[in-house]
Amino acid sequence: MNHLNYIDLFGFLAALLTTIAFLPQLYKTWQTKSADDVSLVMLILFITGLFCWIIYGFKINSIPILVANIITFIFNLSILVLKISYRKN
Amino acid sequence: MNHLNYIDLFGFLAALLTTIAFLPQLYKTWQTKSADDVSLVMLILFITGLFCWIIYGFKINSIPILVANIITFIFNLSILVLKISYRKN
Repeated sequence: MNHLNYIDLFGFLAALLTTIAFLPQLYKTWQTKSADDVSLVMLILFITGLFCWIIYGFKINSIPILVANIITFIFNLSILVLKISYRKN
Repeated sequence: MNHLNYIDLFGFLAALLTTIAFLPQLYKTWQTKSADDVSLVMLILFITGLFCWIIYGFKINSIPILVANIITFIFNLSILVLKISYRKN
């Protein structure tokens, strides 16, 4: 493995981990039917940021940025929808 | 404003939003002394991914990747520490 591949490996691993990380949160929220401890402001800021990453990835024609952020966007939007639907009155 | 600046603006805004998003989560966890609904697996995967982004940013000499991910790493590590310390037995 050459030097470039070694660096790229960390980039791919980083993108993979920060993308799939939200799947256990989505699963936990679905199972417990509760997301009161998850900050609504965090979700709104994060989802808005991910939307900006998608526009940025589209504009610079970066498939890795597009793919990683579209998946993360879908996961976090799902968490937000579940949080709102499970909200205690 | 030229075309390049318009694209860069989305990149900077994206990085800013996906970084500061975790500050309200940290504040909420600190205030409520509860993070039971926040997935432990999510935090561990995300923090490991951020650590990989920091190594990647260091290796490719990217100050924006380094700065954004170091700040996000500190916020999420703090949320993890609070979550563990507030855990109900």
